[in-house]
Amino acid sequence: MVIKRTAFFVSDGTGLTAEALGHSLLTQFEDVEFRLIRIPFVDDADKAHAAVIRINDTGERDGIRPILFTTLVNSKLAAIVHEADAFCLSFFETFLAPLENELGVKSSHTIGRSHGTTDSSDYKQRIEAINYTLAHDDGITDRDLEQADVVLVGVSRCGKTPTSLYLAMQFGLKAANFPLIPEDFDRGQLPGSLERHRGKLFGLTIQPERLAQIREERRPNSRYASLSNCRYEIGEAEKMMRRESIRWLDSSTKSIEEIAATVLQELKLS
Amino acid sequence: MVIKRTAFFVSDGTGLTAEALGHSLLTQFEDVEFRLIRIPFVDDADKAHAAVIRINDTGERDGIRPILFTTLVNSKLAAIVHEADAFCLSFFETFLAPLENELGVKSSHTIGRSHGTTDSSDYKQRIEAINYTLAHDDGITDRDLEQADVVLVGVSRCGKTPTSLYLAMQFGLKAANFPLIPEDFDRGQLPGSLERHRGKLFGLTIQPERLAQIREERRPNSRYASLSNCRYEIGEAEKMMRRESIRWLDSSTKSIEEIAATVLQELKLS
Repeated sequence: MVIKRTAFFVSDGTGLTAEALGHSLLTQFEDVEFRLIRIPFVDDADKAHAAVIRINDTGERDGIRPILFTTLVNSKLAAIVHEADAFCLSFFETFLAPLENELGVKSSHTIGRSHGTTDSSDYKQRIEAINYTLAHDDGITDRDLEQADVVLVGVSRCGKTPTSLYLAMQFGLKAANFPLIPEDFDRGQLPGSLERHRGKLFGLTIQPERLAQIREERRPNSRYASLSNCRYEIGEAEKMMRRESIRWLDSSTKSIEEIAATVLQELKLS
Repeated sequence: MVIKRTAFFVSDGTGLTAEALGHSLLTQFEDVEFRLIRIPFVDDADKAHAAVIRINDTGERDGIRPILFTTLVNSKLAAIVHEADAFCLSFFETFLAPLENELGVKSSHTIGRSHGTTDSSDYKQRIEAINYTLAHDDGITDRDLEQADVVLVGVSRCGKTPTSLYLAMQFGLKAANFPLIPEDFDRGQLPGSLERHRGKLFGLTIQPERLAQIREERRPNSRYASLSNCRYEIGEAEKMMRRESIRWLDSSTKSIEEIAATVLQELKLS
């Protein structure tokens, strides 16, 4: 029998931090089916009271109290929300007091600082990185590659584009990417001017069966998607990466986050 | 006097969850300057011991014990890492036991489930959404707009592209975006076939001074970047959005995450 529970993420900011940690906790319970509800921007008493009503109504309808994850910096708002009839895990309240104690200073209790202000240099760097990455997707150009923090290479559809965008979006890294195509294998050379940027190269590979499946969805019944062609391209790409001493990983069973975290670690970018 | 401390994020997965919550806690301490070190993929005893050595070495060099945020599912590895001479906040251990108690089931203690397996439908949806969003950036096409979950509109450089990509990457939403350009204002009509997708439209606007600054970096001394032209475009765009009853927000001081969370809330997509 499947257990069903509703989980709320209530925050005075976007609620994304509460959701990330809450989600990683809830995925540990395979036998429970969770309905997830985010209530962001709870930054005044009216919204806090409205959240409580919504949580309590849900609990009544479910016949069991909801789980409630909160990241509320303002202690007055936290006090209101925590009156809800729910099982409450408060991320900030649990950790801020011990941290204040350890650091010997009071926290500022400021709302929504975690994503940075739009005037900060970090934030500008992220936006610039996204623009750079879009302009350097899929080998569009090898101009300005000296500005790149990382250059991903690999056969078409092995995960370069989503990984590049994630690196830019999340870490403000300028991530270019270049496909390795049959012409490169025939020439036996890395495409474009990648030679000169060897230190920034990172390769992605993928299992032929999985690649064929991904390509088939895009171009059904094509030579491009055929298993034999996928095998050929991947074999040649891995040969090239081995020969050129490019670090690489198999993306077949890895999420974008896992690929990105590995790239950061291998290229010592974090 | 600035207090300097080193903070470690140690995880058996990517460490991104530990970092997100840790970061939002640390930003509450404005007087402390933190050096952040992520140690991801600590999934065996050797790596756990290596992490302890690195943490202890850092503490000795700093002359003060580091802050240590952990998300370690495996309790044996957690026990090793927690032997480090650090001030440790353990996200999983703190919350898993109370959650097990509330839910009446044991957690699976499985590593790295939070980003989903690459075979899951959620994951495929994210990748598809990223591809869709890239293909529908900046009004490239109005084909397949019926598939879009959201269509952002606004003047050039007001934040549509990063927001669209974030919605796709983080929430698996197909997010198209269309620029509102002088031709649209002259015609007094929404571009392309947006008329038919009114329910999915969300507008972004921006303060003229900020837009001029952003455009100036891209095309210095151009009419495009001039404050008077920015004022004109924004005035016309807001007039159009008001006339067409399009919900909108001012992106000037909002991060990508805040804009995205607002769009989700307003269009009831979450």
